[in-house]
Amino acid sequence: MIVCKFGGSSVAEASQILKVRKIIESNSKRRLIVVSAPGKRNNADKKITDLLYTCNKEVKNGEGAKSFKIIRDRYSEICETLGIDGITEMLDEVQAGIESGKGADYAASRGEYLSARMLAVFLEAEFIDSADILKLSDDGRIEESGYSALKARIKGTGRYIIPGFYGSDSNGNIKTFSRGGSDITGAIAARAVGAEVYENWTDVSGLLMADPRLVDNPCVVKELTYKEIRELASIGANVFHEDAITPVKDYNIPINIRNTNKPEMPGTMIVTNRDSSKTPIVGISGKNNYQNIFVEKLRLNRYPDFRIKFLSILKAHDIVPEFESTGFDSLSFLAPESQLADIENVLKEIQNNLHPDLLELRSSLGLIGIVGGGISNQIGVAASVFSVLSLNNINVRFINYGGSDITLLVGVDSNLYLDALRAIHKKFDEE
Amino acid sequence: MIVCKFGGSSVAEASQILKVRKIIESNSKRRLIVVSAPGKRNNADKKITDLLYTCNKEVKNGEGAKSFKIIRDRYSEICETLGIDGITEMLDEVQAGIESGKGADYAASRGEYLSARMLAVFLEAEFIDSADILKLSDDGRIEESGYSALKARIKGTGRYIIPGFYGSDSNGNIKTFSRGGSDITGAIAARAVGAEVYENWTDVSGLLMADPRLVDNPCVVKELTYKEIRELASIGANVFHEDAITPVKDYNIPINIRNTNKPEMPGTMIVTNRDSSKTPIVGISGKNNYQNIFVEKLRLNRYPDFRIKFLSILKAHDIVPEFESTGFDSLSFLAPESQLADIENVLKEIQNNLHPDLLELRSSLGLIGIVGGGISNQIGVAASVFSVLSLNNINVRFINYGGSDITLLVGVDSNLYLDALRAIHKKFDEE
Repeated sequence: MIVCKFGGSSVAEASQILKVRKIIESNSKRRLIVVSAPGKRNNADKKITDLLYTCNKEVKNGEGAKSFKIIRDRYSEICETLGIDGITEMLDEVQAGIESGKGADYAASRGEYLSARMLAVFLEAEFIDSADILKLSDDGRIEESGYSALKARIKGTGRYIIPGFYGSDSNGNIKTFSRGGSDITGAIAARAVGAEVYENWTDVSGLLMADPRLVDNPCVVKELTYKEIRELASIGANVFHEDAITPVKDYNIPINIRNTNKPEMPGTMIVTNRDSSKTPIVGISGKNNYQNIFVEKLRLNRYPDFRIKFLSILKAHDIVPEFESTGFDSLSFLAPESQLADIENVLKEIQNNLHPDLLELRSSLGLIGIVGGGISNQIGVAASVFSVLSLNNINVRFINYGGSDITLLVGVDSNLYLDALRAIHKKFDEE
Repeated sequence: MIVCKFGGSSVAEASQILKVRKIIESNSKRRLIVVSAPGKRNNADKKITDLLYTCNKEVKNGEGAKSFKIIRDRYSEICETLGIDGITEMLDEVQAGIESGKGADYAASRGEYLSARMLAVFLEAEFIDSADILKLSDDGRIEESGYSALKARIKGTGRYIIPGFYGSDSNGNIKTFSRGGSDITGAIAARAVGAEVYENWTDVSGLLMADPRLVDNPCVVKELTYKEIRELASIGANVFHEDAITPVKDYNIPINIRNTNKPEMPGTMIVTNRDSSKTPIVGISGKNNYQNIFVEKLRLNRYPDFRIKFLSILKAHDIVPEFESTGFDSLSFLAPESQLADIENVLKEIQNNLHPDLLELRSSLGLIGIVGGGISNQIGVAASVFSVLSLNNINVRFINYGGSDITLLVGVDSNLYLDALRAIHKKFDEE
């Protein structure tokens, strides 16, 4: 079986839903479908989920769910175009629920609920309500029972549709995941039925090698591993929600990111292992404006307590050094600016308790993560990175490699960050 | 004033001492001379200091200082050749002292003592006994009073000779420094008199860019900083005793390593600051067979306690990670094999207390330190290093830069360590 999740743009209007049907019907294995709420059709549109939150607020303010009319019109228009019956009753039921004060989670979840109900009719598939199946613990984790419960429901040979983004708590009340949570529902569903692949249908043709807002025309990455995607996300890439990988990765279910508008494209495969010989690097991501705290203490290596106390002081101030480099007499650590609101006091405390020879806040750095399994087994990746920086007259301030086999971290002065990112991207995107 | 220290080979025989005189007399500023004990003239020779330790043992064993005859012959031969009077009385005094059981420190110090006495006669200089001037605390540190005491003694306009390697404790008993300690005496003397330069005369024409036992014909480094020399020593280079830098570095007294046999060569200058634009890199050193402990823990960055506890466990087993690299979900630390005798228990303790997702002792690494002030302000150093490794088909396992501005650390598989060291050296020695 193949589990398909369709995102907001794939169900935003009737013409998109026709594409969805075509995709589903072109492969009989596509039997378990997860859907999002309709997204924007254009910049003037509001997302259905945002409108639902607005309705809930309106009810709380005693105005009644005024904005529900826009929602009603969106779904009605789709159903009318596609000849889907019964949407009026579904909308009435949802509006009544919101107006009865069932709260924000209930309201927000109804976009997916209505999408799934509507598509179940259109595709002649069986609707499964996530609230009946996926139980969330008080800290928002999926109970293990959800996997077997879902599997038990998928007995027949037909298609099933399940709304993304929510489950229910121990009292049976609707509880939503974090935003973007339909990806998580898709992953849970894939694991529950032991899918051969989890197809995640979006409006892009796959994951890109770098942020298209920062570099020119990044290519689509054909294949990358769970680990590579995690490292890319850690150093700033807005790739694929980590919680949506966790359910499938231990079960070796590949995730295939696809484009509903270009179903002929193979998209991106996220897998357990890959052959990195042809594509050593899968992504270039980064974050700018890291603060750099530099400490000098003669023979630092001989004082193990120094580093323990140093980390303890940072911890007391809720600072976790994201990156660290140790020298013989010195220690450099990088943290995002956001963590350093209290930096003056932190520096004072370090000075008074540890008496370093030198303690300074250095000029901020941009960090670039070059990620790929090929770094560890192919010769010349570091040479390529540093040669291209040298050719572009960019000096290197920080290098960290070895903590992870698959990420080479390079720091440059913040004002050179974009130049460096673009130069490195260009180098590897050509390959 | 210039302070000159002459090492063991410079006073090993009469012909060498003639060179010493020529050097001293060629510059009237060379007025404070520190001398070592005579070293080996050839491979069959024993060092005077070693013979003195033997004499002390012989006395303890009740055999009398049998070996003293060899010492007597060495000094007598030199003095006879150079026409120096009075050596017999000096030797008698020393032999009597050793035979009276004054102990190992006293015995060992007599090589320098006799050298200095002998040269004082030869150069018509004033002998100053280090035991009267340099007081050592119980933990072997020089008391501050030694600097002013020495300065007070240098009142005249003539030359002064002081034996290296020893001082005296609070009871007035002779106490030696660690071996090679005459360099320390020289540094103390230079600081005491505020020397314009501390000349350290040896049998090499300066510090070499790399270990000549490992690479072909390393060049002499013309100039490097105290900090560069310290970092070179930290990553394995056998350069210049750190304790012999400490006294002069805060006083900006340059150290000039010179060759007694080639006094026309400028040697190596060790200075506070240098212009690194022409010579970005001053040395390549390294150590092989570092053990690599690798730990994986999902979202390591979110658990500051993990690293604190990790370091605490290591500390409890007397392991100080010399180098460390942190990834997002992992941590790699390198320690010399010698520290890891108890590694099985350490790994168990880490496993039981920290429950990492993965804990392994990885294949050992050789670490190469590329040291030079030019790394931080010249573009392309990292590019050169990694390009040359790539050209030599050597893969990179570990990189650390930024903890120190002036050292780029590169780790390679242990079996490729020498190849990598040689390739990098060749690259920078050419420049």
